[in-house]
Amino acid sequence: MSNEDATGEAPGKALGEKGARTRRRLLEAAEQVFADLGYHDASIVKITEAAGVSQGTFYLYFSGKQEIFDVLVEDLNTRIRHAMSEASAKGASRIETERLGFEAFFRFTAEHPALYRVIRQAEFVSPRMLRLHYDRLASGYVEGLRAARDSGEISIGDPVVTAWALMAVGEMIGLRWILWGETREVPPEVFRETMAFVARALGVRGFGVEAPDEAEAPDE
Amino acid sequence: MSNEDATGEAPGKALGEKGARTRRRLLEAAEQVFADLGYHDASIVKITEAAGVSQGTFYLYFSGKQEIFDVLVEDLNTRIRHAMSEASAKGASRIETERLGFEAFFRFTAEHPALYRVIRQAEFVSPRMLRLHYDRLASGYVEGLRAARDSGEISIGDPVVTAWALMAVGEMIGLRWILWGETREVPPEVFRETMAFVARALGVRGFGVEAPDEAEAPDE
Repeated sequence: MSNEDATGEAPGKALGEKGARTRRRLLEAAEQVFADLGYHDASIVKITEAAGVSQGTFYLYFSGKQEIFDVLVEDLNTRIRHAMSEASAKGASRIETERLGFEAFFRFTAEHPALYRVIRQAEFVSPRMLRLHYDRLASGYVEGLRAARDSGEISIGDPVVTAWALMAVGEMIGLRWILWGETREVPPEVFRETMAFVARALGVRGFGVEAPDEAEAPDE
Repeated sequence: MSNEDATGEAPGKALGEKGARTRRRLLEAAEQVFADLGYHDASIVKITEAAGVSQGTFYLYFSGKQEIFDVLVEDLNTRIRHAMSEASAKGASRIETERLGFEAFFRFTAEHPALYRVIRQAEFVSPRMLRLHYDRLASGYVEGLRAARDSGEISIGDPVVTAWALMAVGEMIGLRWILWGETREVPPEVFRETMAFVARALGVRGFGVEAPDEAEAPDE
């Protein structure tokens, strides 16, 4: 995690402590405003009002609405990768690493429901940032999967396809059960099923998954 | 497939043949305009210009921009489900059914790149339609997976979690390799890897996948 920039500050911009706080406040306000109103109805006035700073101050940090949107996507991306790496680093096995990573992703999603709305808007507002978001999430993931495959811990083919497929699984389960759910978490039985799916997809044995000829499918 | 309405016509609206053609032309124009410009910059004028009909004619079929958007989502949803059911019905085994269904989904994606852009916009423009889109895609899928599980052909737990996870995989692979790709198709080796992932996730043997203790992971 040493090469990750968890605060999302633009590199090379030397802000004082107060400046960094103001910039962070603007990003938090932007997260809320973009999520609530959407990019088109969001405005710099609404962001500065929510942040409690003047419009003049805004322009000390960002050139306009598009720039703060792009920085926000990058900031959310950095924070989610940080949360996932920090959690999954504690895993003693690959499937434990996956479990901790998925847990952290779902926790982040529950705390930042804006993530999905902002990311989906990026498809229009800033396609480059959407691609960057997924590419960055994938690249660390690919390395971890490749290492686990090469050591024989999991049995997959190409780690790139596997990484993109599993990113998608996390995103969809989060959408269906957190954002659309009645509670702000993935229900325990859904989480268990998701991890069983992941374990099978990775060719891991012994995570409540048995080979088809050894067991009947559970019927819960 | 007998209960699917492949043309996407609103039920109960008795349009003549000419009316049905005009309505279809408006929907095709809307698909293009929403995909190119996004919902906010799209307008009824632009849609009618692209369709080559008058604005007055538009209002014979749709009450406004929001309505044609909602109908378009439902129409795309009906057509993609139709394409997938028709293709996958030819499958002799569950994994063959999956392969044909994924192939049809990717083909549809290549032919209708607007699908993703329209669906992602629905998160803001019409959250109800986004949910409807996924719910409808999932529900037929769940039944197929449940039947294959109950007959012992695949070894999964809850078919609902499995269906949502696999829908996500198709969507992400399509995004990464068709929409962002250099060609308008999923490269053959990526398709092979995707199907191997699906086969493992479903607990199917014999689709180029072996149990971890029986084979080394391929290294291509």
